[in-house]
Amino acid sequence: MEFVVYLAGEIHSHWRDEIKERASEHRLPITFVGPMENHSRSDEIGEEIIGEQHNSIFKDEAASKINNFRTSVLMNKSDIVIALFGEKYKQWNTAMDASSAIALNKPLILIRPEHLHHPLKELSNKANVTVESVEQAMKVLRYIFDQE
Amino acid sequence: MEFVVYLAGEIHSHWRDEIKERASEHRLPITFVGPMENHSRSDEIGEEIIGEQHNSIFKDEAASKINNFRTSVLMNKSDIVIALFGEKYKQWNTAMDASSAIALNKPLILIRPEHLHHPLKELSNKANVTVESVEQAMKVLRYIFDQE
Amino acid sequence: MEFVVYLAGEIHSHWRDEIKERASEHRLPITFVGPMENHSRSDEIGEEIIGEQHNSIFKDEAASKINNFRTSVLMNKSDIVIALFGEKYKQWNTAMDASSAIALNKPLILIRPEHLHHPLKELSNKANVTVESVEQAMKVLRYIFDQE
Amino acid sequence: MEFVVYLAGEIHSHWRDEIKERASEHRLPITFVGPMENHSRSDEIGEEIIGEQHNSIFKDEAASKINNFRTSVLMNKSDIVIALFGEKYKQWNTAMDASSAIALNKPLILIRPEHLHHPLKELSNKANVTVESVEQAMKVLRYIFDQE
Amino acid sequence: MEFVVYLAGEIHSHWRDEIKERASEHRLPITFVGPMENHSRSDEIGEEIIGEQHNSIFKDEAASKINNFRTSVLMNKSDIVIALFGEKYKQWNTAMDASSAIALNKPLILIRPEHLHHPLKELSNKANVTVESVEQAMKVLRYIFDQE
Amino acid sequence: MEFVVYLAGEIHSHWRDEIKERASEHRLPITFVGPMENHSRSDEIGEEIIGEQHNSIFKDEAASKINNFRTSVLMNKSDIVIALFGEKYKQWNTAMDASSAIALNKPLILIRPEHLHHPLKELSNKANVTVESVEQAMKVLRYIFDQE
Amino acid sequence: MEFVVYLAGEIHSHWRDEIKERASEHRLPITFVGPMENHSRSDEIGEEIIGEQHNSIFKDEAASKINNFRTSVLMNKSDIVIALFGEKYKQWNTAMDASSAIALNKPLILIRPEHLHHPLKELSNKANVTVESVEQAMKVLRYIFDQE
Amino acid sequence: MEFVVYLAGEIHSHWRDEIKERASEHRLPITFVGPMENHSRSDEIGEEIIGEQHNSIFKDEAASKINNFRTSVLMNKSDIVIALFGEKYKQWNTAMDASSAIALNKPLILIRPEHLHHPLKELSNKANVTVESVEQAMKVLRYIFDQE
Repeated sequence: MEFVVYLAGEIHSHWRDEIKERASEHRLPITFVGPMENHSRSDEIGEEIIGEQHNSIFKDEAASKINNFRTSVLMNKSDIVIALFGEKYKQWNTAMDASSAIALNKPLILIRPEHLHHPLKELSNKANVTVESVEQAMKVLRYIFDQE
Repeated sequence: MEFVVYLAGEIHSHWRDEIKERASEHRLPITFVGPMENHSRSDEIGEEIIGEQHNSIFKDEAASKINNFRTSVLMNKSDIVIALFGEKYKQWNTAMDASSAIALNKPLILIRPEHLHHPLKELSNKANVTVESVEQAMKVLRYIFDQE
Repeated sequence: MEFVVYLAGEIHSHWRDEIKERASEHRLPITFVGPMENHSRSDEIGEEIIGEQHNSIFKDEAASKINNFRTSVLMNKSDIVIALFGEKYKQWNTAMDASSAIALNKPLILIRPEHLHHPLKELSNKANVTVESVEQAMKVLRYIFDQE
Repeated sequence: MEFVVYLAGEIHSHWRDEIKERASEHRLPITFVGPMENHSRSDEIGEEIIGEQHNSIFKDEAASKINNFRTSVLMNKSDIVIALFGEKYKQWNTAMDASSAIALNKPLILIRPEHLHHPLKELSNKANVTVESVEQAMKVLRYIFDQE
Repeated sequence: MEFVVYLAGEIHSHWRDEIKERASEHRLPITFVGPMENHSRSDEIGEEIIGEQHNSIFKDEAASKINNFRTSVLMNKSDIVIALFGEKYKQWNTAMDASSAIALNKPLILIRPEHLHHPLKELSNKANVTVESVEQAMKVLRYIFDQE
Repeated sequence: MEFVVYLAGEIHSHWRDEIKERASEHRLPITFVGPMENHSRSDEIGEEIIGEQHNSIFKDEAASKINNFRTSVLMNKSDIVIALFGEKYKQWNTAMDASSAIALNKPLILIRPEHLHHPLKELSNKANVTVESVEQAMKVLRYIFDQE
Repeated sequence: MEFVVYLAGEIHSHWRDEIKERASEHRLPITFVGPMENHSRSDEIGEEIIGEQHNSIFKDEAASKINNFRTSVLMNKSDIVIALFGEKYKQWNTAMDASSAIALNKPLILIRPEHLHHPLKELSNKANVTVESVEQAMKVLRYIFDQE
Repeated sequence: MEFVVYLAGEIHSHWRDEIKERASEHRLPITFVGPMENHSRSDEIGEEIIGEQHNSIFKDEAASKINNFRTSVLMNKSDIVIALFGEKYKQWNTAMDASSAIALNKPLILIRPEHLHHPLKELSNKANVTVESVEQAMKVLRYIFDQE
């Protein structure tokens, strides 16, 4: 039995690589998917495909359509969602992806530094599990496969 | 025919009063509901009901359960959700409420200052309508009742 | 027991008034709702609320968001949908509203002139009932209330 | 991970072949499905299977049942729907297929010539992405597989 | 709190009147709805509304569309479904209505003479309660309102 | 706006009366519903309606059908479910009712004595709020109606 | 792409073998599933597994549970349902299976001899396609795989 | 065609091994999944992953989140659920898992010793099949694969 895990959130660090390497080391039968990790391409994708837009709002609108399309396609294929909140940016799209996972009945692991517990308290309460590090999330994933 | 509108988001300003007054002036058949607007009571509600907690994380956990319960009860009764993003705080619970509205097929109006367009682009793309002011949101609400 | 009926489709003729009058004559306990019937206001509503747009595509985008919001709010409240196809325009939004009704499990009556049977054959096959006139649709509605 | 894409809309041009060739060139792991592309067989399929019908309306009714059956089977298997609107015909079944995709939570790409933006504005607003050419739709598909 | 009960099945006997009278005697807050009880009008309703049909199959097709429309509208409004199987006819539409109730999560009471237990065994197993008489079904309904 | 609250669980104590009295004192717009509170009638209801059964298993089967029917009808009408676990009995039907509430997206409050925290940990984790007394549950209910 | 087809209905004739052979001849990528075709074993399965029952009603109850379990497991795995109505028996379980298919959004082909059109009219109206022979049903299945 | 079966309930006996062996003997194409069977690790998993907790309630809370996550992931992948109730413990999580299976439309077999029929009567009534031994459950599973 194979699993697909969608890795939502922060795209400027290397946490996805860390998860993939560990899963590979433990030979977990998991395929990882996620958003475009090249931040500037993610912002430019609307203009890249449908051409230059009138202003930055329309540029954002065009990009968000294609990013949401990608997220929707890949999250539909997923069995599990892991969402990581970091220090930078507003990360409202991460909150949205995490909420979509809950709505689609995809079990959700939230990763956030401890000091963000207050602003994330409502979302954390809806997640299945909240942890503070990629390593802990990895242990939760591995627990699925343990028999004893 | 009567409607229930859930007003999600910012609780330290008076935007909900403004909406209620305008709806009352135009005699719109709408009942407005929303979160606890007293910010400190919202944060304290867990300890208020189940007693003092071990630390601030557990205090937040206790409060978030009761706030999420309230939101869930009231949003289930709603026909429309309006979510306002302001300047302060992380507002991840607002992003979560807006996403829940989308998941529950509750038509959603997003209000945000123009300069927040970039971090809100994915959520804005999923909302039915995004506007920049309470006044514009009010016009969208009124349009439902206009015959011509 | 009261019913809400959403009247989708053609907004340049007076078929909605005819239905409302007949329902009133027969004292049917029905509230009728539907789209903005003032065609130009429907097209202008985006700019009316959020201001002038860069070009006609963005003007249409702005208007369609608010019209879809209205349709979604009112169709969610409806027990039945009647969709009328006429001679003019592409009427793709009527096809979309009719399909939404099917998806939301709202029983659907389609009204269309007989000669449009070929292009409407797939949609007609999914509707509950297809008729050729407002008068026939009215008879279908009245049949719900008849005991014998 | 493999994907199934349903190609709805226009059956008298060769846009499906173009998409399949490009996907093949880029070795995308996609299986494409769609309606019967032989227009006259699509119209005749009812009589082909259940025999001659009384008139053209019943002939259409018989054909539409079998075409809708096929569409329903194949769309249920799909992860993504692409719907192309062209210049000819009423294309109400394309609007219906696009709306079904939305209702089934299948991410939807709309392809239409720019000048059709007005009649398609409401449907375009509900689609995930609207583009003007097969080439652009292809770029959106490819973006799903890009890591950076 | 008021309830709506859909009474499916046999239309040539007076079991609906018996239920309504008993509910009235016990002042139960229930509105009863159901199919057209005039059997010949139910069979003729297609031709009555859309005109004479080519043969009895098309006449049946036309009638069944309008009868299914009525059933769908009224069952959607119902909290409970009671389906009675009698001695006469194939009663496949009763089996279909009972199955629809199950699919729509409407609690279902089946009434059938004891000797029909064998052919109804699978459907009976899916119903909430199976009884042998209108009087027993009535007792089940009354039990909802009893406090002790 | 009125609410319906289903009170699941223990039927040999008077906790439902306590809740109803407090809600009445605070003039909360709530209608309370729940299971048959007469324990022996609840056990006998199958034989009461369909007659004596062959043995105690069939007697239980007959009763459980009618009790589940009642629960299903009343829970469908409810906006909120409160489930109380006490000291006596296996209470597996309470666990089932609480799980049904979760599945039906009805916000759920669990009441249990503190020392039962271990066997209830998984269910408690899925409930919206877990408290230790009727008084605390009452405070959670009242919080829905507070504006500040 | 492979398909699973559930073959509901009549178990005393050899129509399933006919369908399987034809599908095999045309190398259609279809796996066929269905009910226990040994009629007496289907009736005895309850007593076979849980032992002798008190009377024929309880024997039927025991068998129907296991038959419904099997049907539910296999129909959940299916992409398409074909239901055949024959001359013998009440066939209410066939009507139930066909209705379940509709409720589960599994495209449905109904096979029935022409003279049964009247009692099956409502169910036929809800099916995607109604045909009169196994051969015609087979042609509908094959049409899914034809490109032109 | 392969099946996944989730084995819920009692983790201190060897019933899962018995089922797996028998399935293997009969070469049934079934993959079995289930909860962590090491009881103490199941209780400790919260502290194992996120560190020591303040008291036993928080320890339980932490463990239940991760156990519920595991159950949710594996049950979503399952086609069938078998839940075994034994003599020891409260087993409220087993009742919850069984109820989740029902809510997710996963066919459910309940195994319980006969003398537990009374406290399990409501849950048993909602299960597809209730048996008294692993051997009987195994026979129900095998019946799915029998052709005659």
